[in-house]
Amino acid sequence: MSQKKVAIIMGSKSDLPIMDGAIQCLNDFGVSFDVNIVSAHRTPEYMVKFAKAAEKNGYKLIIAGAGGAAHLPGMVASLTILPVIGVPIQVGKLRGLDALLSVAQMPKGVPVACVAVDNSFNAGLLACRCLSIGSKVLSEKLKKFQKKQKLRILKTDHDLLK
Amino acid sequence: MSQKKVAIIMGSKSDLPIMDGAIQCLNDFGVSFDVNIVSAHRTPEYMVKFAKAAEKNGYKLIIAGAGGAAHLPGMVASLTILPVIGVPIQVGKLRGLDALLSVAQMPKGVPVACVAVDNSFNAGLLACRCLSIGSKVLSEKLKKFQKKQKLRILKTDHDLLK
Amino acid sequence: MSQKKVAIIMGSKSDLPIMDGAIQCLNDFGVSFDVNIVSAHRTPEYMVKFAKAAEKNGYKLIIAGAGGAAHLPGMVASLTILPVIGVPIQVGKLRGLDALLSVAQMPKGVPVACVAVDNSFNAGLLACRCLSIGSKVLSEKLKKFQKKQKLRILKTDHDLLK
Amino acid sequence: MSQKKVAIIMGSKSDLPIMDGAIQCLNDFGVSFDVNIVSAHRTPEYMVKFAKAAEKNGYKLIIAGAGGAAHLPGMVASLTILPVIGVPIQVGKLRGLDALLSVAQMPKGVPVACVAVDNSFNAGLLACRCLSIGSKVLSEKLKKFQKKQKLRILKTDHDLLK
Amino acid sequence: MSQKKVAIIMGSKSDLPIMDGAIQCLNDFGVSFDVNIVSAHRTPEYMVKFAKAAEKNGYKLIIAGAGGAAHLPGMVASLTILPVIGVPIQVGKLRGLDALLSVAQMPKGVPVACVAVDNSFNAGLLACRCLSIGSKVLSEKLKKFQKKQKLRILKTDHDLLK
Amino acid sequence: MSQKKVAIIMGSKSDLPIMDGAIQCLNDFGVSFDVNIVSAHRTPEYMVKFAKAAEKNGYKLIIAGAGGAAHLPGMVASLTILPVIGVPIQVGKLRGLDALLSVAQMPKGVPVACVAVDNSFNAGLLACRCLSIGSKVLSEKLKKFQKKQKLRILKTDHDLLK
Amino acid sequence: MSQKKVAIIMGSKSDLPIMDGAIQCLNDFGVSFDVNIVSAHRTPEYMVKFAKAAEKNGYKLIIAGAGGAAHLPGMVASLTILPVIGVPIQVGKLRGLDALLSVAQMPKGVPVACVAVDNSFNAGLLACRCLSIGSKVLSEKLKKFQKKQKLRILKTDHDLLK
Amino acid sequence: MSQKKVAIIMGSKSDLPIMDGAIQCLNDFGVSFDVNIVSAHRTPEYMVKFAKAAEKNGYKLIIAGAGGAAHLPGMVASLTILPVIGVPIQVGKLRGLDALLSVAQMPKGVPVACVAVDNSFNAGLLACRCLSIGSKVLSEKLKKFQKKQKLRILKTDHDLLK
Repeated sequence: MSQKKVAIIMGSKSDLPIMDGAIQCLNDFGVSFDVNIVSAHRTPEYMVKFAKAAEKNGYKLIIAGAGGAAHLPGMVASLTILPVIGVPIQVGKLRGLDALLSVAQMPKGVPVACVAVDNSFNAGLLACRCLSIGSKVLSEKLKKFQKKQKLRILKTDHDLLK
Repeated sequence: MSQKKVAIIMGSKSDLPIMDGAIQCLNDFGVSFDVNIVSAHRTPEYMVKFAKAAEKNGYKLIIAGAGGAAHLPGMVASLTILPVIGVPIQVGKLRGLDALLSVAQMPKGVPVACVAVDNSFNAGLLACRCLSIGSKVLSEKLKKFQKKQKLRILKTDHDLLK
Repeated sequence: MSQKKVAIIMGSKSDLPIMDGAIQCLNDFGVSFDVNIVSAHRTPEYMVKFAKAAEKNGYKLIIAGAGGAAHLPGMVASLTILPVIGVPIQVGKLRGLDALLSVAQMPKGVPVACVAVDNSFNAGLLACRCLSIGSKVLSEKLKKFQKKQKLRILKTDHDLLK
Repeated sequence: MSQKKVAIIMGSKSDLPIMDGAIQCLNDFGVSFDVNIVSAHRTPEYMVKFAKAAEKNGYKLIIAGAGGAAHLPGMVASLTILPVIGVPIQVGKLRGLDALLSVAQMPKGVPVACVAVDNSFNAGLLACRCLSIGSKVLSEKLKKFQKKQKLRILKTDHDLLK
Repeated sequence: MSQKKVAIIMGSKSDLPIMDGAIQCLNDFGVSFDVNIVSAHRTPEYMVKFAKAAEKNGYKLIIAGAGGAAHLPGMVASLTILPVIGVPIQVGKLRGLDALLSVAQMPKGVPVACVAVDNSFNAGLLACRCLSIGSKVLSEKLKKFQKKQKLRILKTDHDLLK
Repeated sequence: MSQKKVAIIMGSKSDLPIMDGAIQCLNDFGVSFDVNIVSAHRTPEYMVKFAKAAEKNGYKLIIAGAGGAAHLPGMVASLTILPVIGVPIQVGKLRGLDALLSVAQMPKGVPVACVAVDNSFNAGLLACRCLSIGSKVLSEKLKKFQKKQKLRILKTDHDLLK
Repeated sequence: MSQKKVAIIMGSKSDLPIMDGAIQCLNDFGVSFDVNIVSAHRTPEYMVKFAKAAEKNGYKLIIAGAGGAAHLPGMVASLTILPVIGVPIQVGKLRGLDALLSVAQMPKGVPVACVAVDNSFNAGLLACRCLSIGSKVLSEKLKKFQKKQKLRILKTDHDLLK
Repeated sequence: MSQKKVAIIMGSKSDLPIMDGAIQCLNDFGVSFDVNIVSAHRTPEYMVKFAKAAEKNGYKLIIAGAGGAAHLPGMVASLTILPVIGVPIQVGKLRGLDALLSVAQMPKGVPVACVAVDNSFNAGLLACRCLSIGSKVLSEKLKKFQKKQKLRILKTDHDLLK
């Protein structure tokens, strides 16, 4: 059994550069995670097994990235009660609009938390926010991040005046 | 084991009025079929079981209708080698564009035959065309249908002149 | 200080019929919540105050519904570290596409969990999933819900055969 | 008379690089095919002749690729009873959305099996699935392909752990 | 042989209420015309015959209305050298966007004059403009129409002031 | 007074590379034309003067190219009774969709003949078709062009077989 | 010469119900205005005259509403140096997207201030904001409006608690 | 207190190259301005402070640029009574459509003046038009600019003839 908090999954190794944002984010926040290649369309049964076992394996949350007719986040959400964050990935010609609609437009009863196209960093951050519900440490880190982010902008603004 | 040629599946009973076009079509052509409510998101494991057993159960082809983030056709296609015809169904606010992209934009290796939004009759007809590859009888029926369709238009055109 | 777990907010009382899905869902799951009318555009300072105080007021999660240039979810997310779930609401002529993009396409550093257009029930369900991370009771309820949902579909399927 | 199983047609030689996916796929599966340049708009009568003779020429199925106002798949489908698979090709400025809608949105009575934009490999695979209805050999090859595809993903997943 | 100047064609009798605008317009301008039901998808060979004979039959111009994957205007344009005006008709769920793109996005070498969705009156007017190139009478009528149209607006504007 | 048949106009010299297709086409067909930079937005009064004088100046037809909020074709059409062919030009970020809608969606009473995005060659060809109504010579050239176009495709098809 | 501050113009009397929002708004704020029917496409020369004389006629600002290929705001903006506020109006089938793009996507050098589809009230409000630059009285009214708007929301929020 | 007329703000320094058009325009017209980095999402409270103080700080008008879920213009407009001009900036994959809808589709009561995607020059020009209401000098400059712009086009047109 994994002791990791988050499972980051994606349908193909070629999605790794995009999903790297989530990896970096969780690393920055000290949230443990596993990365797995799990394809809804190429390994549907492995996906079922993975999703069904996710809770028992100790995961608290799943981040799933997918492009085109992006089924992975929605299917995983149908097989677990863990919160699932979906990252629509731009592949092919339609600029990620297909993936955005496939991830966001889930039917009543099976929720997916959709973030912006290719924005896996925000998926990581959203995971941290969800996990921080029961964790003071993570709460503090998120506040620090938010503050640092603010200060960086304020400094840019200040430097502009010189 | 079913002796039916085609499995018509959809995620919810509320899809039946739309999927009725496929039912009518197969009835017209004398192609045997079963109708099942199989939901990718609400009964994912039943869907896996259904899709995996489809070939052994004697089905030659699957017609799957779904709306919104329409995952059913694609997921079934990933679990069988039977041809899968997907019917994007318009539910909700985005006029079926979400379902159309979710059904059509499948990744390399897992094909779905997408027809027009809500056009389940064409899904039935496409099924007949596929099944006619090995069936003279069905071929003849399709030719008759095509001819009748043509004659109806020609008659309309002719009646207009009077 | 509120002892409620979730804050459900929306920009106008006219959004209540749509946001009722989230209310029903949280009621069904026995998750306490408050409902507030907080408008990003008409009460921006109240929104700031509300969002900044949310954590201290005991909320664990915020569900925010908004239509058109839907700024409420994103702005609230920028003012708290609590997870924010955004519900794009269809108002006006563009079928909710404007709200969907305004809610989903958040920049790096400020995540919003976007659900489907008008699907506030899923926002409630996603909230329950997030809150279940630290709650066995809620986990069990989610499993029961998922099972009931499954059984309802299976029964529909079964009844169809008669 | 051709003894080939599949006719792959496209409107212009410049479509060949995109349609090469279908060629590769059919080669991989040992399905015989012809490749023809048949333009709905530049050689409409040759198209009519080609489509009408397709069945007599021994073809079992037609794969048609087209871009822009992509009329080739739909027109061919109106002139034969063979199943027609349409590949929307991205040409020009609108990212293939024009071709996708022109191929998918066929009227009642004339079905086209639409695949994803530029995804001619899937058109080939869909053809194999249709032809496998009467062919044990092809069925087995499809299962092998599906398995290999699965194993490749599982291996990628496994290698990631090292 | 018809002595009519314009052929108004459409794929189905159900398109008549929309195409009535063109009929009214040509009637108003005293331009002779025939109305025919010619379907690209249901009577492809009749369409070929019709389009090829159009010039010999004395037509100077063709107005073709079609919805969905609207192939009629483009196909007719490929089979004649007469100018073809295409009217995208809204049928089905996608608000006429599919028809607009199918009519407008023609490839190099086969032009169609596309007008606004459902705006068959403008197709009639455009036909009159084209035919007026060699006709003083028609030119004068067009000027009168333009003037009347102007005066009606000016009168509305004037009446508003009272 | 110009003796040229066609006026090709565009809003900016930067549109010339796109509008060159129309120039080439008219040159190929021996149709005389003038090229003018006439901007709806930067030289509105010159545009009014130009459009109003077009008929008197001997032009039979106007081809107008424009991008973005492409007003030139529609405005010119409102100021003349000559047929106006509009070429939507892709400038900026929205892939020409803005120009396509601005050119095509004209109100009742003021028709524009819209061709495909950036396809000025077809605008030229459409002009030739319109002008051929009263010209045997041009008719013959159009038939020759159509035939040559057909033969080129047939030859490509034939060469493929070797 | 009119002593009115704002000119509200639209292409047709049928636009009045939508443009009524601007009328109401200016009435509420005590800003004088005229309402005129001025059509870019049906009265282009009147439009030119109107726009060119607007400044001399004492207008400080123009609000222009238009639907479809909405040219009125952009054309007026090209003929005056007064600020022009454009209201895209939903007419026809494309849900106002055509008007939105035609109004918003103006080229460099000719600005239009675009508001939301059908939201003429905001056009009136934006006019008041622009006019308030030199007017203490109007500034105060705008602050009062903003405050009243805020209080209405706060009261709704408060009433909800009971 | 700043004596500058216009505040140009944007969410990130990376927006500067796009917003440079507004800077150049105001420089050309001799309108004083400040440039600030103010992020709706990263410095929401600084934004509130900035927007609330804008009027007191002497600004007459605010230009705000933002991409993706572009909230800055709308939020600032909710916190001031100064006119706010929004520039939708193309970032990410959706070609600026997300930003355009987020900026333009504001609810009743909180107006933003939206210009074209990435067209910050027009935002500057629109600012000048608004400020010219009370300034003869600026009016004259705008007329000169409009004239120069016209002459440049006329000269291009003239040079073409040689």
